[in-house]
Amino acid sequence: MQTKKYYQPLSGNEMPRFAGSGTFMRLPAVALSKDLDVGFVGVPVDIATSNRPGARFGPKEIRDESRMLRPFNVSTGADPFNSLSIADIGDVPINTFNLEKTIEIIEQHYDNILAHDVIPLTIGGDHSITLPILRAIHKKHGPVGVIHVDAHADTNDHMFGEKIAHGTPFRRAFEEGLIDGKRVVQIGLRGTGYDPDEYCWSQAQGARVVQAEECWYKSLAPLMAEIRESIGDGPVYISFDIDGLDPAYAPGTGTAEVGGLTVHQGLEIVRGCKGMNIIGGDLVEVSPPYDVSKNTSVVAANLLYEMLCVLPQVNYR
Amino acid sequence: MQTKKYYQPLSGNEMPRFAGSGTFMRLPAVALSKDLDVGFVGVPVDIATSNRPGARFGPKEIRDESRMLRPFNVSTGADPFNSLSIADIGDVPINTFNLEKTIEIIEQHYDNILAHDVIPLTIGGDHSITLPILRAIHKKHGPVGVIHVDAHADTNDHMFGEKIAHGTPFRRAFEEGLIDGKRVVQIGLRGTGYDPDEYCWSQAQGARVVQAEECWYKSLAPLMAEIRESIGDGPVYISFDIDGLDPAYAPGTGTAEVGGLTVHQGLEIVRGCKGMNIIGGDLVEVSPPYDVSKNTSVVAANLLYEMLCVLPQVNYR
Amino acid sequence: MQTKKYYQPLSGNEMPRFAGSGTFMRLPAVALSKDLDVGFVGVPVDIATSNRPGARFGPKEIRDESRMLRPFNVSTGADPFNSLSIADIGDVPINTFNLEKTIEIIEQHYDNILAHDVIPLTIGGDHSITLPILRAIHKKHGPVGVIHVDAHADTNDHMFGEKIAHGTPFRRAFEEGLIDGKRVVQIGLRGTGYDPDEYCWSQAQGARVVQAEECWYKSLAPLMAEIRESIGDGPVYISFDIDGLDPAYAPGTGTAEVGGLTVHQGLEIVRGCKGMNIIGGDLVEVSPPYDVSKNTSVVAANLLYEMLCVLPQVNYR
Amino acid sequence: MQTKKYYQPLSGNEMPRFAGSGTFMRLPAVALSKDLDVGFVGVPVDIATSNRPGARFGPKEIRDESRMLRPFNVSTGADPFNSLSIADIGDVPINTFNLEKTIEIIEQHYDNILAHDVIPLTIGGDHSITLPILRAIHKKHGPVGVIHVDAHADTNDHMFGEKIAHGTPFRRAFEEGLIDGKRVVQIGLRGTGYDPDEYCWSQAQGARVVQAEECWYKSLAPLMAEIRESIGDGPVYISFDIDGLDPAYAPGTGTAEVGGLTVHQGLEIVRGCKGMNIIGGDLVEVSPPYDVSKNTSVVAANLLYEMLCVLPQVNYR
Amino acid sequence: MQTKKYYQPLSGNEMPRFAGSGTFMRLPAVALSKDLDVGFVGVPVDIATSNRPGARFGPKEIRDESRMLRPFNVSTGADPFNSLSIADIGDVPINTFNLEKTIEIIEQHYDNILAHDVIPLTIGGDHSITLPILRAIHKKHGPVGVIHVDAHADTNDHMFGEKIAHGTPFRRAFEEGLIDGKRVVQIGLRGTGYDPDEYCWSQAQGARVVQAEECWYKSLAPLMAEIRESIGDGPVYISFDIDGLDPAYAPGTGTAEVGGLTVHQGLEIVRGCKGMNIIGGDLVEVSPPYDVSKNTSVVAANLLYEMLCVLPQVNYR
Amino acid sequence: MQTKKYYQPLSGNEMPRFAGSGTFMRLPAVALSKDLDVGFVGVPVDIATSNRPGARFGPKEIRDESRMLRPFNVSTGADPFNSLSIADIGDVPINTFNLEKTIEIIEQHYDNILAHDVIPLTIGGDHSITLPILRAIHKKHGPVGVIHVDAHADTNDHMFGEKIAHGTPFRRAFEEGLIDGKRVVQIGLRGTGYDPDEYCWSQAQGARVVQAEECWYKSLAPLMAEIRESIGDGPVYISFDIDGLDPAYAPGTGTAEVGGLTVHQGLEIVRGCKGMNIIGGDLVEVSPPYDVSKNTSVVAANLLYEMLCVLPQVNYR
Repeated sequence: MQTKKYYQPLSGNEMPRFAGSGTFMRLPAVALSKDLDVGFVGVPVDIATSNRPGARFGPKEIRDESRMLRPFNVSTGADPFNSLSIADIGDVPINTFNLEKTIEIIEQHYDNILAHDVIPLTIGGDHSITLPILRAIHKKHGPVGVIHVDAHADTNDHMFGEKIAHGTPFRRAFEEGLIDGKRVVQIGLRGTGYDPDEYCWSQAQGARVVQAEECWYKSLAPLMAEIRESIGDGPVYISFDIDGLDPAYAPGTGTAEVGGLTVHQGLEIVRGCKGMNIIGGDLVEVSPPYDVSKNTSVVAANLLYEMLCVLPQVNYR
Repeated sequence: MQTKKYYQPLSGNEMPRFAGSGTFMRLPAVALSKDLDVGFVGVPVDIATSNRPGARFGPKEIRDESRMLRPFNVSTGADPFNSLSIADIGDVPINTFNLEKTIEIIEQHYDNILAHDVIPLTIGGDHSITLPILRAIHKKHGPVGVIHVDAHADTNDHMFGEKIAHGTPFRRAFEEGLIDGKRVVQIGLRGTGYDPDEYCWSQAQGARVVQAEECWYKSLAPLMAEIRESIGDGPVYISFDIDGLDPAYAPGTGTAEVGGLTVHQGLEIVRGCKGMNIIGGDLVEVSPPYDVSKNTSVVAANLLYEMLCVLPQVNYR
Repeated sequence: MQTKKYYQPLSGNEMPRFAGSGTFMRLPAVALSKDLDVGFVGVPVDIATSNRPGARFGPKEIRDESRMLRPFNVSTGADPFNSLSIADIGDVPINTFNLEKTIEIIEQHYDNILAHDVIPLTIGGDHSITLPILRAIHKKHGPVGVIHVDAHADTNDHMFGEKIAHGTPFRRAFEEGLIDGKRVVQIGLRGTGYDPDEYCWSQAQGARVVQAEECWYKSLAPLMAEIRESIGDGPVYISFDIDGLDPAYAPGTGTAEVGGLTVHQGLEIVRGCKGMNIIGGDLVEVSPPYDVSKNTSVVAANLLYEMLCVLPQVNYR
Repeated sequence: MQTKKYYQPLSGNEMPRFAGSGTFMRLPAVALSKDLDVGFVGVPVDIATSNRPGARFGPKEIRDESRMLRPFNVSTGADPFNSLSIADIGDVPINTFNLEKTIEIIEQHYDNILAHDVIPLTIGGDHSITLPILRAIHKKHGPVGVIHVDAHADTNDHMFGEKIAHGTPFRRAFEEGLIDGKRVVQIGLRGTGYDPDEYCWSQAQGARVVQAEECWYKSLAPLMAEIRESIGDGPVYISFDIDGLDPAYAPGTGTAEVGGLTVHQGLEIVRGCKGMNIIGGDLVEVSPPYDVSKNTSVVAANLLYEMLCVLPQVNYR
Repeated sequence: MQTKKYYQPLSGNEMPRFAGSGTFMRLPAVALSKDLDVGFVGVPVDIATSNRPGARFGPKEIRDESRMLRPFNVSTGADPFNSLSIADIGDVPINTFNLEKTIEIIEQHYDNILAHDVIPLTIGGDHSITLPILRAIHKKHGPVGVIHVDAHADTNDHMFGEKIAHGTPFRRAFEEGLIDGKRVVQIGLRGTGYDPDEYCWSQAQGARVVQAEECWYKSLAPLMAEIRESIGDGPVYISFDIDGLDPAYAPGTGTAEVGGLTVHQGLEIVRGCKGMNIIGGDLVEVSPPYDVSKNTSVVAANLLYEMLCVLPQVNYR
Repeated sequence: MQTKKYYQPLSGNEMPRFAGSGTFMRLPAVALSKDLDVGFVGVPVDIATSNRPGARFGPKEIRDESRMLRPFNVSTGADPFNSLSIADIGDVPINTFNLEKTIEIIEQHYDNILAHDVIPLTIGGDHSITLPILRAIHKKHGPVGVIHVDAHADTNDHMFGEKIAHGTPFRRAFEEGLIDGKRVVQIGLRGTGYDPDEYCWSQAQGARVVQAEECWYKSLAPLMAEIRESIGDGPVYISFDIDGLDPAYAPGTGTAEVGGLTVHQGLEIVRGCKGMNIIGGDLVEVSPPYDVSKNTSVVAANLLYEMLCVLPQVNYR
C-alpha cells in the first residue's frame, strides 16, 4: 500500500532558480495514481487559434516561469503543499495536425485523470481545449458552474464554418449541457463583435456577464463575494483566458483586446473563488513568442498557483 | 450617378485574420469621392521626431493590427459601417528627406480630402502632421475645438531652432488661429520641462489643461461630461498622441513619459466625445520598432475605431 | 477586348518605401484574368507545422519586406516587368482550423489560377501547401520536374499518423505521380533523422539528392549547370523551403537545421534555373515571429523575385 | 578657492537627445569634491541575483534613457539644478567575479563619497549593493530610517547558504544596526514565500510593512502623509527596488512578481518623501536584457530624478 | 543485476516537439549508475562572465532547443542510441553567489559522475566550468589532450585580479598539469588583446594555435585529419566555446568576436574528432537572453549531439 | 607647452566591461587640439534614410559595443595606442529636423577637426553624412581616393526629388570633384535597381566597381593587393556602409540587401588598406533598433578599430 506523498517544489536553496527540471514549480514529475490529489497538466494546442499562434509553447514557458514560485501564499495564507499531494503529470500528446482528433485525445486523457480522482489544473494551449476537458468533467461531476475570465464570450456558433475552434467552446458546452447556465459567470468581456448583441446568447442561457467596463478602476472583491453567494456549493470549474487581462499585463497572447482587467483584478477573481467547490481549472491562450519579457508566463504561473490555493482541501495559516 | 456604398470590413469568416489586405480593418481601398463619408489615411512621417524614430511605420503596423476589429462596438452599441460609407484612402506620399515640403504635401492632400467632404481619420506618423491637417481643416471649418490627449503640450516655440517639429504643432496652430483656444482641452500632460510653467502658455490661450496627475485612479467619464458641456456644438478635432497613455499600455512610442493615462481612460476620453461635433481625428506617435508585442498598434487601432464610432452620423443600437 | 498591362512596382520616388500598399513589391492588386501572366499569391497556412508556428504570417511579412525591391535585376540583367504582366493576386482563404479542408481549398484555388494561364509564384505558408499546388499543376502540366531546396526531404510517410503535414508533401507527390522522379533534385538536405537512410526513399524514386555537406564552401553554379542539362525542357517547379538556408541567413523559420546553404548559394540555385521551363514556384516556411530583424523575409522576397526573373519569358539586358 | 557650480543637463536644443554623453541626464561627469552636493553613481553588480541576471547593465541603460529628462519637475514644481550642485560621478569599479570583494569595494567607495559630503543617488545593480551603501551611510549618519519599496522584504537570513545576496541586505542591515527599525517602512511586499510569516521578521524589528494588496486601486498620498508624520526629522534613505512596481510597468527586472504597485504609486511614494530628511537613495534591479522597449529604464530614470527633487535643499516654484 | 538500457529520445510521433520533458533530446532523466555510459549534464554558471551575462540559462535553453534532434546522424551515419546507454543526468547545483564554492561543487559533482564511469557531455554555463571538470577528469584519466574551439585562448593569468574567471581556465589547467600541452589544439582564436603576443603563452606550453584567419573560406577537414594524426590514442577532451563561431552563426553569447568560424567548420571540427579517444566534452558560453531567434541554442544542441556521435563506442551505419 | 598624450582605452581589469564611460573603446573624451592625432566622432543622422530609420543611435550603440575591444590587434600586430594620440571627440550637434542645415553643420564641424590636423574616424549615422565630410576633407587634401564598401553605389541623382539623401552622396562627391574617380573603388554592390545599368555612372567617372557576386566564396586579400597597387600614394578615404556586409553578419541596418560580403571579407578589405595613405574613414548605416543581438554594432566597432590600425603612422609588432 502506497502512502500519500506531500511533494514539495524544489527550493531555490537546493538548486538555483534558473536550473532544475522544467516541471510546474519544479515539482516532481509523477505518474497518475489514486494517491495524487492534484495534477498540473499541459495541453499544447494552438491549431484552433484564429489570429496569432504560439500557445503551443504555453505549457513549456509557463512551467519555466513558475520556477520563482515558493510554496506558501504569503498574501492569502494558503499552504497547499502540506494539504494535498500535488505534482506535475506532464503533457497531453495532442495531434497538432488534426484538431478533431486532438479534441478526442484530450477528452480521453482527462477521463483517465479524473478516473484517478486527480484534480486537473491545466496549462494551455488555446481555449479550444476547455471543451474536451468539460466533457470529461461532466461525466464525473455533471453540469458544473464556471468562473470564466476572458475578453471574449467564446460562444460563437462556428468560426470559418467550423464547430470547434478557440472561439466556440462555451457555445458547445452550453449546447451539450456540460455547464449549468445559471452558475456560469463570464468576466472581462469586451471589444468589437460581429453582432451588436454579442453577449445575449450567454445571458439567454442563464449566465451572468460582467463586461470589462463594469470592472474598471475598482476592486473585484465585492463582485466575487456576490458570485460566491449565488454559485452555491455545487462543483465549479475555473477557465481563465489570459486575454481577460489587459495587454499591458499580459502582452503575450493571440487575440489581444484593449481595456481589460488588471492583474490585481485577476488575482482577486481567483482568490475570490475560495469557498467555492472548485473541481478543476485551466489557464489558456498564453502565446510565448509574443511574450518578449516572459512576464505573461509569470502572470499565468501565478494564476495557476492561486487556483491551487483555492481548492477546497487547502489549509490556511 | 454613383450610389453610396456601405463598405464592410472583411470578415474573419471569409479570410483568416492573419491574411488579406493590409488596409485599416481590412476595408476596401477606395479612391476619394463625394460618396465616401469617412476615410482612414496614413501619414508616415517621423523626421520631426526628437528622440526615438519609427513612427513612419505607424500607418502600416496600426492598419495591420486593426485586423482583429469586428464591425460592431459591443461596449457602446455603435454601428458605424451601416451608418456611413467608410474606406481606407491610402497614404500621403510625404517627402521623407525634407520636413518643410512634407508639411506642404500633407496640407494639400487634406485640402483635397476635405474638398470631397470626406472626414479624415488619420493614422500617424509623428505629431508634426497635425499642423498641416489643422491648416486644411481650418480652411473648411474655421477655428475648431480640440480634444488633445498627450504627455506633452506640444507648444514649444521651436525645437533646435526649428519652428516645425513634433513638439511645436499646437504653438503654431494657436498662433495661426487654426484652433479656438477656449474650446481646446489638453489631457494627460506630465513630465519634466525646460520651464517650470510649461503649461501656462496653453492656458494663456484659453485652453483647459488636465494634467495626468488629475486623472490618476479614476474614471474620466465625469471629466468628459464636463468637457462636452463646455465645448458646445462647434466643430471639434481629436488629436490623440499615444504617449498620452502610460508606457505600460503603449510602450511603442518615441518620447515615453511615465505616469500616464491608462488605456481605459483613453477609451473613455474618445467614447466621451460622443455628442460632440467631431469633424476629424488623428492618432499619432506609435513607433513600431519599439512595440515588440505589437500591442501599442492594437491600442492605436482601437482608438481610431472608437473615433469612428463617435462621429455624429453614427447610429447606435 | 482588354489589352495586356505591364504593371510596375510602385517606385520609392512616388511613395516612401515604408508606406503604400502591402502587396508584393507594391505591385497592383489585380483580379485573375487571361491578360495576366504571373501572379504572386499568398497561402497563409501553418497548421501543418511540427515545431514553431508562425508561417501563417509569411505572406504578409514577405510582401511587406519586398518593398525595397526595385524593378531591374542589376546582377543578372533580367527585366521582368517589361516582359510580362505581373501582379499580386491576393491570398487563398484557407480554413485555419481544418488542414484537410485547407488542402482542398488550395487545390481549387490553384485550379482557377491555372485555368487563367497565370503562372503562380507562391508566398507560404508551411510546406504542406506544395502538395495541393502540385496537384493542380499536374492537371495542367502532367508530372513536372522539381528543384526542391530544403533541409528536409519531406518524404515522411506520415507525421503523428497523419498523411498530410509539412514533412510529407513530396512523399505524397511522388506516390500520386505528380512529379517526375528522374527530374527531381533535392538540394540542401541535412540533419538528424528517424532513419539512417533518410534520403534513400527519394533516391529510389529517381530523384537526385544533393546533401548540404556537398555544397559547403563553394559556388553552386557548376551544380546548376549540370542540373539544367539533365532536367531538360519539360516543365519544372521550384519549391524553396527557407530552411534550406543556414539559420544564420534565415533565422525566422520553424524547424531550423544548422549547417545549411548560404544565401549566396540560394541565389545561385534560383538564378541557375534560368533556361529551364519554369512553370511555377513557391517560397515556404518563413516564420515572422522568429524573424526579429525581419531579414528572413527580406531573403524570401528576394528569392521570389529571382524566381520571377528566371521565368522563360523574361527578357534580359 | 573653487566656487560651486550649478551644472545643468545638456539641453535637447544643444545636442539631439539621442546623442551626447551617456551620463545621467547628460550632466557633466565630474570628480568628487566638497563643492558638489549630489552625485549620481552607478554600481553595476548582478552577481548576487538569484534568477535572471542583467542588472549589471542597469547603470548604463538607465543613464541612457535618462536623456529625455528636462531640468524642471513641472508636476511638482521642483527646481533641483538651480538649488544644488549635481553631477554624474561615474561607476564603482566592482569585481564582478567575487561578491565579497565587491561588497567591500562599494563600502569604501561610498565612504569616500560621503567624506566629500556628497549625497549619493545610486543607479543599480542588484539589491545586494544596498548593504555596503548603508554601512557607509551608517558611519556618517548613524542608524537611518528607510523608505523601502520592493516586492520582497529582502530579509532572508541566507540564500543558498550565503549571507550576502540580493535577498538578504535588510536582514544584515537590521542585524548590524545600520537602520532604525521603527523608522523603516517596506511598501509593495507580495508574492509567495518559503515561510507563511515572511514579513514578521521585519515587523519584529519595528518596521512597518505595507503589503501590495493594501495599495491596490488607490492613491498612496495619504499613506505617505502618515509615514512622513511618523518617520520624523531623522535621516532617511530611499531604497527603491524596481520590482516593487508591477511587471506591466517595469518588465525589465530579475525576479518579477505580479500584482505590484503602479508607476503612479511609485511616483507618489517618492514625491511623498518631500519634507523628510533624505540623505541618499538607490534604484535597483533593472535588468536591461529583459527590458525590450527600454521603458523600465525610463521609469527608473524618472524615479531617480524624483528622488533628486525631494532632497531637502531643493527649491520649489 | 540491472541490465543496460538503451534509452531513446522521445519521438515527435509520440509527443509533439513543442511539448514533453525539457531534458536533452527529450531523453529520460536518469540517476547516475554504472549502467549508464553517457550523461548530459547542465552547469548553469555565469558569474565568471566578464561582459554580457545569461549563460546560466544555457542548460535550460539548449536542452529545450535540442527537441528537434532525431536519433540518427544521417550526415555521418552515427547511431549513438543503439550503441550506448545515454541519458540526461540533470544539473549541478551550483552556488550562484560564490564562484569559488561553485568551482568546488562542480569538481565534486564530476568526481561522482566519473566514479560511475559515465562520460560527461556538459551543457554550460560560462567557460570557468571547464577548470573543475578538467580537475575531475585529470584524477581519472591523467593529463588529457584538448580540442579547444574558442575566440579566446582563455589563458589569462587573472582577470580583475582573480585567478578564477571565464578567461583563465586554460592557464590554470596548464599550470596544474591537467592537460597535456603537446596534445592541445586551440582553434578559432582571434580579436584584440592586452598583449600583442596573446597566444604565445599557449604555444610555449606546446599547444597548437590555429587562428581564425587560418580557417577562413575553407573546409577544416584537412586540419582535423592532421590533428587526429598528431593527437594520437590518448584521452581527449573537447571544449567548445560557442564564441569560436562567428556571431552570425551564434549571436547569443557573452563576449562576441567578429571574424569567427562558420557553423559548417564547427561541425567539421567535432565530426573530425571521430577516431580520437574522446572521454568528455563541453559546450559553453551560450547566453539565451541575447539569442532572440533561439538558433544559437539550436547550434549548441547540434554540436553536443555531434560530440555524442564521435564517442569511440558509437556504431556507424 | 602641452606634450602629446598616448591615451589608452580603459582596461577591463580596472573597470568591468559593462560599466565606465560610453566613449569609443572607453577612451578619454578629449577636446580637439593639435596634440591629438586621431579622433573618433559620432554623427547621429538618420533623416536621410529611405527605409528603416534608427541610424541616429549608431554612434551611441557602436561606442557602447566597442567596450570589448582591447588595445592590441593580435591578428595583424598593430599597436595603435602607443603610436598615436587617440581619443573620442564626441558628437556633431546635428539638427535632426532639417537635413540641409545638418549637412552644413557637419561640414563646419569637420573643417574644425581638420584644422587641428586630427584624423577623423566617423561613427554614423546614415550615408548622407559622407558628403559634408568629403567636402571638408577636399578642402584640406584635394580630391581623394575612396575605398567604398556598400550594397549600393549611392550615386542616385536624386531621391524623391532631393539632391541630398543617403543614396546620393557619391553622385554629389563626383560632381563636386571631391573624389578622384580613377582612385575610387566600390566593393560589394548588388541588388535590384531602377536602371539595368545602375553601376555604369560610377564606372563612367573612372571608378572601379567590384560587384558582390565577384567576391563570393573567396578571400579578398588578392583584390586588395591589386587595389593598393593602383590607388598609389595619394590620400585615401574609407567609407564603409555596413550594408555592404550580408544581413547575416550585419542585420541591424536600414536597407538590407541579401548576398553581401562576409564579415571576414569586410575585415580583409580594411586590413588590406594598410600601406595606403588613409586620411579618414567612416562606418555608416548601423540601425540599432534592428540589431537585437547588438552584434551589428560589435561588427561596426571592430571595423572602426581596424581602420585605426591601418593609419599610416601606426606601428606594427
